[in-house]
Amino acid sequence: MSRPDLNPALEFLTAETPAAWLEAARANLPLLLIDHANCEKKAASTALGLMYRYVGETEILHKMSQLAREELRHFEQVVDLMTALDVEYVQLSSARYAGELHKLVRKDEPDRLVDVLILGAVVEARSCERFVRLIEVVPAEAAALYQSLVHSEARHFVDYLELARKAAGTAIDEHVARFLERDAELIRAPDASFRFHSGVPG
Amino acid sequence: MSRPDLNPALEFLTAETPAAWLEAARANLPLLLIDHANCEKKAASTALGLMYRYVGETEILHKMSQLAREELRHFEQVVDLMTALDVEYVQLSSARYAGELHKLVRKDEPDRLVDVLILGAVVEARSCERFVRLIEVVPAEAAALYQSLVHSEARHFVDYLELARKAAGTAIDEHVARFLERDAELIRAPDASFRFHSGVPG
Repeated sequence: MSRPDLNPALEFLTAETPAAWLEAARANLPLLLIDHANCEKKAASTALGLMYRYVGETEILHKMSQLAREELRHFEQVVDLMTALDVEYVQLSSARYAGELHKLVRKDEPDRLVDVLILGAVVEARSCERFVRLIEVVPAEAAALYQSLVHSEARHFVDYLELARKAAGTAIDEHVARFLERDAELIRAPDASFRFHSGVPG
Repeated sequence: MSRPDLNPALEFLTAETPAAWLEAARANLPLLLIDHANCEKKAASTALGLMYRYVGETEILHKMSQLAREELRHFEQVVDLMTALDVEYVQLSSARYAGELHKLVRKDEPDRLVDVLILGAVVEARSCERFVRLIEVVPAEAAALYQSLVHSEARHFVDYLELARKAAGTAIDEHVARFLERDAELIRAPDASFRFHSGVPG
């Protein structure tokens, strides 16, 4: 895999996915695919949410609408793969991950917007990192899909981070650090349910 | 305009848009565009809502995801037109239309799904009809956009109606009639606010 365009996302994170999570992913491909499909829908919903709230921000409207369209296209690709692999799409509870990160979002504007955009950047970077690691352990059809998705995740990471910087109009390092710290905790801590963004199984 | 592919949608409706609404549209282009942008977002949200609820229905997942992507693309085009015409995108309350139609949706499955799909068909047909009529009265740039959108609305109408028939597995004429009757009432009745799907002004 050519990685130069992935490095900004990968180097942004402060914790690598633990080997135990990758083992669980290898053993739970149907769960991984279903939760991945759910994550693509959730990413599109989150983008739409920003499009409802920030109607005066034309760049956000455009970037989020394009991002939502890409996530929906990915959703269709995951569903196709599930069909090909005979994976039944059943309802699944969400990972704790996004909900826990959301608790860090400040309430007043423009802080709220800045934080939601930082959160988007962190989730995209983490997804990118997980895809890169998963490519080594999942069956060929899934690896091929992840290979095709990883570059858009890296692009979405850059977009979110750039929008966060513009929305803040000042340095955001301190706030980025808050989200990265929590991401690392959640990725390393034991987690009752295996999901795309879960911690260490157990 | 070549209309053969539009006729199923246009002939489906039981009431034409009153001339008074078209007059109001001509006089309120900024409002029309803002509410149209909102309708495209709402159409994408509605499709996503079905994708969250009916995960076992692969055809619905695919059709709704593709439809949502198209509506988002339309949203971007409307926002571009607003930018070109210096129309400021401000927050706007919704029309009464969709909310009133939603009151007709039955509560138990599979009736709920059938009704939501019929509702989708009615809204797409009405949107198609409004675009056809608007093309005659709005400025050239808006007319060109509407001309480019009207055929997808007609296609979405066909998709929704076909999905409703499959979900029901039996004749749905009686339920289609309920929604069409309400659509006609809402389109003909006086309406306090001018919107894309509003009734007669006043």
